[in-house]
Amino acid sequence: MPAIFPSLSALRDAARDLPAPDEAAAAAVAAREAQLTKPPGSLGRLEELVAWLAHWQGHAPRLARVDVLVFAGNHGVTAQGVSAYPPAVTAQMVANFAAGGAAINQLSRAAGADLRVIPLALEQPTRDFTRAPAMDEPDFLAAVAAGHDAVSSAADLVCLGEMGIGNTTAAAALAAALFGGGGGRWAGRGTGVDDAGLARKRAVVDAALARHASLRGDPLALAAALGGRELAAILGATLAARRLRVPVLLDGFVATAAAAPLARLRDDALDHACAAHVSAEAAHRRLLDELGLVPLLDLGMRLGEASGAALAVPLLRAALACHTGMATFGEAGVANKEK
Amino acid sequence: MPAIFPSLSALRDAARDLPAPDEAAAAAVAAREAQLTKPPGSLGRLEELVAWLAHWQGHAPRLARVDVLVFAGNHGVTAQGVSAYPPAVTAQMVANFAAGGAAINQLSRAAGADLRVIPLALEQPTRDFTRAPAMDEPDFLAAVAAGHDAVSSAADLVCLGEMGIGNTTAAAALAAALFGGGGGRWAGRGTGVDDAGLARKRAVVDAALARHASLRGDPLALAAALGGRELAAILGATLAARRLRVPVLLDGFVATAAAAPLARLRDDALDHACAAHVSAEAAHRRLLDELGLVPLLDLGMRLGEASGAALAVPLLRAALACHTGMATFGEAGVANKEK
Repeated sequence: MPAIFPSLSALRDAARDLPAPDEAAAAAVAAREAQLTKPPGSLGRLEELVAWLAHWQGHAPRLARVDVLVFAGNHGVTAQGVSAYPPAVTAQMVANFAAGGAAINQLSRAAGADLRVIPLALEQPTRDFTRAPAMDEPDFLAAVAAGHDAVSSAADLVCLGEMGIGNTTAAAALAAALFGGGGGRWAGRGTGVDDAGLARKRAVVDAALARHASLRGDPLALAAALGGRELAAILGATLAARRLRVPVLLDGFVATAAAAPLARLRDDALDHACAAHVSAEAAHRRLLDELGLVPLLDLGMRLGEASGAALAVPLLRAALACHTGMATFGEAGVANKEK
Repeated sequence: MPAIFPSLSALRDAARDLPAPDEAAAAAVAAREAQLTKPPGSLGRLEELVAWLAHWQGHAPRLARVDVLVFAGNHGVTAQGVSAYPPAVTAQMVANFAAGGAAINQLSRAAGADLRVIPLALEQPTRDFTRAPAMDEPDFLAAVAAGHDAVSSAADLVCLGEMGIGNTTAAAALAAALFGGGGGRWAGRGTGVDDAGLARKRAVVDAALARHASLRGDPLALAAALGGRELAAILGATLAARRLRVPVLLDGFVATAAAAPLARLRDDALDHACAAHVSAEAAHRRLLDELGLVPLLDLGMRLGEASGAALAVPLLRAALACHTGMATFGEAGVANKEK
């Protein structure tokens, strides 16, 4: 079977050829919304979320099947001492996901969502990107394809998250290369490095930017050189979701950075994606601002694993329940606003 | 049967004699939290919420029974043209609640919560408080008692909200009298008044403050003079919940203003209450800041009906699911942070 994207340029072409929102489905939502027994607009963002679901699903909005996809990868840059945890924790946490013991297991169940964890060649970390590109082109494209394949057209919503010791450093390097600024702007404490660890992360980001400076302006080449397999898979999954008309909830800083190259290829590439939350990693807010994404939740979380995305699913379910279940002014015999 | 609070001074005494948080229950939560398979603190506010439940429930936290209480009242001040809707809508919406057609019906179901609506003498609006106190003392105390009685010690959490055409004007007047500033600081568009309606609301608040200036410094007398029955009931329910060890989720601007007199009687009176959201009514943010409450959600909602409170319940359920369901580092064989 030929790879879905045989080259970076094939991927680039696909990322620039995207379906538009379905205006008819959104208009039907708006027409019903105006008749429901509440002041117009009084459910605020909940109303916008229902319209967003309709825009990107392309039919009357539904949330029968919600998938949570967690991609895992290992990072050669951990050799630089950028994480508070040893790299073996990536595989240990994947086992914890399989056993049902992690936060995302509980949050997926609470959200009524199906969790799937996709480990990506954990035994073979990407290269230390201060010394070489993290991935060569075939390795990067294989990870993108793994993410692309993981999205089902039968899903009504997909939550995208990750696990990978060292990957806030990769996310910082990628965000810096895409949006400017160095390690001081984009590196943070991740899972909890101390001051010395934070200084190392900043220096690592700056070194990576210097080494790969020639790739500036090529978002996909930067994603290969500075990212990681789980980031590449999230990029592929985000693209697949757009093509399959499945709205996306993005998790935290790493997931957002992973999808960001798409927005550098086409301004509206993330219109089908919603930022589920803004994390405690300060660079996440900066990145959301660069992308024009407004997070649903701001609860000081910094776990990854798609935890923030899964936590936002009940908000969408509640929004949809209001839209589908409320009575109209006519049905309820409630007087509408005085004109 | 004698009323639970025979006088304002009996209510004042009760509001100053409050149980403290249960430190042992919270310590047990903290001990378990530290062993769970995640970086310390990485679930952010979710971890704080579980500790808060333990503090105020006084045992291992649980959310088996969640009650949503919506109190409804009518307001004589609607004669001043302060609402976009006619006062008959209060009773019409109570009927809509009973029929299951309102937003709060859908949101309560989505939250796994039991909804109870308590209409308070809707056929007899409170007096126009620009001309006289809204309620005399027995009327106010009866509404406080109705709220107090509505809280069950069998509940694990109670969401408090309201319905009452005109009640953002009452809330604005009460907040102004408790925290200073006039109609310009506290009156907003409510369900959607136009510029002329907003100007009338501001003038009404200023007129009410002038008329009842002698009550300054007496939070309960102000609640009687400027509030409404549904606000008084929320005050009573908030107090009862503290006494019965039931944590409270407060809904929007009106519910927060209703409980605020308690915080003026005792600084820590609302420590068992959490602001579920900050509404689009600008004065709500100001009021939360005055009370030192940090909202869980910020979604531009302005409906009332306990809608924001019910929407936050799934966040608490998710927080509790993580706390109770996650594996420890020892159980999962995951390496803990490098020291």
